[in-house]
Amino acid sequence: MLTSLMEFARNPQRIAVFAATAVLAATLALPSCPAQAPAPPPQPHSILDRLNAMLSGGKSAWTPEQIAVMERLRDAALKDPYALDELRHLTDNIGPRLSGSPQAQQAVDYVAAEMRALGAEVTLEKAQVPHWVRGQETAEVVSWPGQAPGTTQKIVLTALGGSVATPAEGLTAEVVVVDNWKQLAALPKGAAAGKILLFNHKFDKELAAEGHGGAAYGGSVVYRGAGPSAGAAVGAAAVLVRSAGGGDYRSPHTGLTDYVDGAAKVPAAAVTAEDADLLKNLAGQGPVKLHLTLTPQTLPDAPSYNVIADWKGSEHPEQVVVVSGHLDSWDLGTGAIDDGAGVAVSMQAMHLLKALGIHPRRTVRFIAWMSEEEGSQGAAAYMVEHKDDAANHIGAIESDLGADHPTGIYYAGKQGLGGWLRPVGGVLDAIGAGSLLSAPETGEDIGGLTDKGVPSFAPVQDSRFYFNYHHTAADTFDKVEPQHLNENAAVMTVLAYALADSAEAAPR
Amino acid sequence: MLTSLMEFARNPQRIAVFAATAVLAATLALPSCPAQAPAPPPQPHSILDRLNAMLSGGKSAWTPEQIAVMERLRDAALKDPYALDELRHLTDNIGPRLSGSPQAQQAVDYVAAEMRALGAEVTLEKAQVPHWVRGQETAEVVSWPGQAPGTTQKIVLTALGGSVATPAEGLTAEVVVVDNWKQLAALPKGAAAGKILLFNHKFDKELAAEGHGGAAYGGSVVYRGAGPSAGAAVGAAAVLVRSAGGGDYRSPHTGLTDYVDGAAKVPAAAVTAEDADLLKNLAGQGPVKLHLTLTPQTLPDAPSYNVIADWKGSEHPEQVVVVSGHLDSWDLGTGAIDDGAGVAVSMQAMHLLKALGIHPRRTVRFIAWMSEEEGSQGAAAYMVEHKDDAANHIGAIESDLGADHPTGIYYAGKQGLGGWLRPVGGVLDAIGAGSLLSAPETGEDIGGLTDKGVPSFAPVQDSRFYFNYHHTAADTFDKVEPQHLNENAAVMTVLAYALADSAEAAPR
Repeated sequence: MLTSLMEFARNPQRIAVFAATAVLAATLALPSCPAQAPAPPPQPHSILDRLNAMLSGGKSAWTPEQIAVMERLRDAALKDPYALDELRHLTDNIGPRLSGSPQAQQAVDYVAAEMRALGAEVTLEKAQVPHWVRGQETAEVVSWPGQAPGTTQKIVLTALGGSVATPAEGLTAEVVVVDNWKQLAALPKGAAAGKILLFNHKFDKELAAEGHGGAAYGGSVVYRGAGPSAGAAVGAAAVLVRSAGGGDYRSPHTGLTDYVDGAAKVPAAAVTAEDADLLKNLAGQGPVKLHLTLTPQTLPDAPSYNVIADWKGSEHPEQVVVVSGHLDSWDLGTGAIDDGAGVAVSMQAMHLLKALGIHPRRTVRFIAWMSEEEGSQGAAAYMVEHKDDAANHIGAIESDLGADHPTGIYYAGKQGLGGWLRPVGGVLDAIGAGSLLSAPETGEDIGGLTDKGVPSFAPVQDSRFYFNYHHTAADTFDKVEPQHLNENAAVMTVLAYALADSAEAAPR
Repeated sequence: MLTSLMEFARNPQRIAVFAATAVLAATLALPSCPAQAPAPPPQPHSILDRLNAMLSGGKSAWTPEQIAVMERLRDAALKDPYALDELRHLTDNIGPRLSGSPQAQQAVDYVAAEMRALGAEVTLEKAQVPHWVRGQETAEVVSWPGQAPGTTQKIVLTALGGSVATPAEGLTAEVVVVDNWKQLAALPKGAAAGKILLFNHKFDKELAAEGHGGAAYGGSVVYRGAGPSAGAAVGAAAVLVRSAGGGDYRSPHTGLTDYVDGAAKVPAAAVTAEDADLLKNLAGQGPVKLHLTLTPQTLPDAPSYNVIADWKGSEHPEQVVVVSGHLDSWDLGTGAIDDGAGVAVSMQAMHLLKALGIHPRRTVRFIAWMSEEEGSQGAAAYMVEHKDDAANHIGAIESDLGADHPTGIYYAGKQGLGGWLRPVGGVLDAIGAGSLLSAPETGEDIGGLTDKGVPSFAPVQDSRFYFNYHHTAADTFDKVEPQHLNENAAVMTVLAYALADSAEAAPR
């Protein structure tokens, strides 16, 4: 998902903005029991939407016939197994798709072939991507208050993406625990020198459970991003961070860390919430020593690709509407919710245009982005390649917040977009996904387009459980509820068609 | 908890009985949201209880003064931090307490010292226990339909307790998947010979979520118990079982397996639900090969101990009421819910008798049982040591189903026990724990006493979430809600006092 942690770490404002967005989104989320919670009823439209609709004279950008097409696409998406089948193949048959890995390349080839099979015009757009490979990752507490002679305690952790390695035989050092930046700043000079520094900032599970998953994540991910360099700056030999996520099943959450350029790099790993609690408890009683072994490797950057597939527009083939997700994933799980689902629902948009024989005025451009997790190199390459073409980008959609029930659409751009989109919201109201919410950003990979003024969009997904699984070994196919995936496919498909076939392009 | 899987595997009736018990218990469980669900309101007493009370003429075995003592004990248990502090020490400072391990011995010494500090008369009762040690445990799918050249897929698993090892370098074989015994029986002759056989029986999560955790467990654990020998009987090179538990966080559930005496033993492990799904999906598409490495060791049986601590009765010191939990645990987590909590709430019963200066007529005997998880050798030793003393055992209590909110007390013995206990239920009604439920068994370690006619008891714990964590790495201190733990301590303490101080002994 839009980790964008380098941005988060460097720009606290963005966190605040993201948090604010999440708070907005949460006004639509109903607190209820997990897993099989029924879809919330359609929400009343915002006053802003109604105002916009009034200001536009209530004139719709779509004819009744086009609305009928949207309804057909929506209903087909709800029933068609294509998205689920594609997701199952990406996750079970291909597996994890770490940037630079053979599986990532296999996924590129597979998705390209699937798009060609639909008759789309396929381009592989090259990008140099990081090629980091996880190694051994173990830790044991080897000394603590009350220890029985000869015993150790296992600590469950996982290396952060991009981490450097410890010596092959590991390193042993005392653990220093801080809960936040303030406690780090308050450490006596030299207190962390040569030690293993643990950032024990707790992921706000209650906030997430209330539907503010992004805000909870934003509060934690800064430690994952900036913690290792902050630790190195005070002389720590290694840095551990409490996992930026929920779950409570002793499952560590990986994710990219962000070493400060030119500064010392120390090995960095995420421990589980349980192990952070243990270390904090024990370190509060007396000296605690940990033996830590991480042997990841950073190989030379590797060539990889965005998969671009165009369903050519019938009137304005040069004008494009992007519908997208990111194809790479972390390596612990199989990248089902992050972001196989986003790719699969975008593929479904293409598949249904083909299946229903629909040729919108403008080009619908499917993109499976590469390396979102490790710096969005694919998106950067796209922005270079298409740097003079922003005007022809009529809209861009990315799905990268899982596949739980969508309640609507985020939009970033001109204020009038919400009112303009109201008829589309009306079509999606039938599946409880008709709310239209203004947001400062919509997706990591389409952020460059957003910045260039291209109207951009994302489904508003239920994020209450997303961060329990995010970046863990448990991000697997079974976490995706087929009905919810199809609802997301409906949102993506209807919106892509609407943007590509409106009489006038979306306001910008 | 009362795995007793050897019994389960060999005696399907017991599963049915256990399931029926769980169904009974579930009638008291309110479906609600996890974690911080409020305690359900006190339930109406059963018609049977009322009938029994009427038949006994409504005469209470306890005076109003004794009822007042119970209320004091209950209220003290709700506030006193002793149980939580002891549990934290057992889990965080000592850690996993596998039978035969240094940590198990440390726990024996620690608990004995704590009991001595209260002024109880402490005996260490020797038992020879298994000494099985987990080794390396890894698996990768090395060949499957759609595989990219040079790639593998990691399978998350854990060796079953007592499993024999694979060769040190592992073994590679094709995977054969069966969902149940029927599918195993339907395999063509020789179909599993030399293969890795996966029993893919799904833990019934819905049943567990409705409060029937024990019934769901009973339906799955038979495969863990009997599956490996059943696989060996059809020539399998190794056996995998889908984890007997819920959770959905790719966390494997260990537990004892039960090789048939004298038959071939093959390496046996539990895979996660996610990995079982993956293997089933891939194997349904074509041949799947797995490389499996398990290097556990079965060392010679080791001496260990039940910790027995008597709070001597003031009138009948020879008559005893047992209050107990089991001190050993599996090794993946730190044994907080299984069964550090049972030990801690039993310790609290002793602590509060001391703290409040209460000396019941009969002896309250705390027991921390050893090796429940690996065959209940501690309980067996107790039954040998005290074989002629059943008549002096007035009652026996064990807590071994976690530490979630208790709704009442299970009792096994004479039908009249429920009515006789009604005044005790009345004291516990104030914390929603006053229901009295007849059950065929109450706890694995006190099963021998139950069989000899000793009235036996256990808290009726909310089991909706217990089997998500049971026997996994996530069975850690944080899983215990302090308020719920204290409610369990109240049940144990009040009941132990009531049994030990009633004018007449409990009916039998």
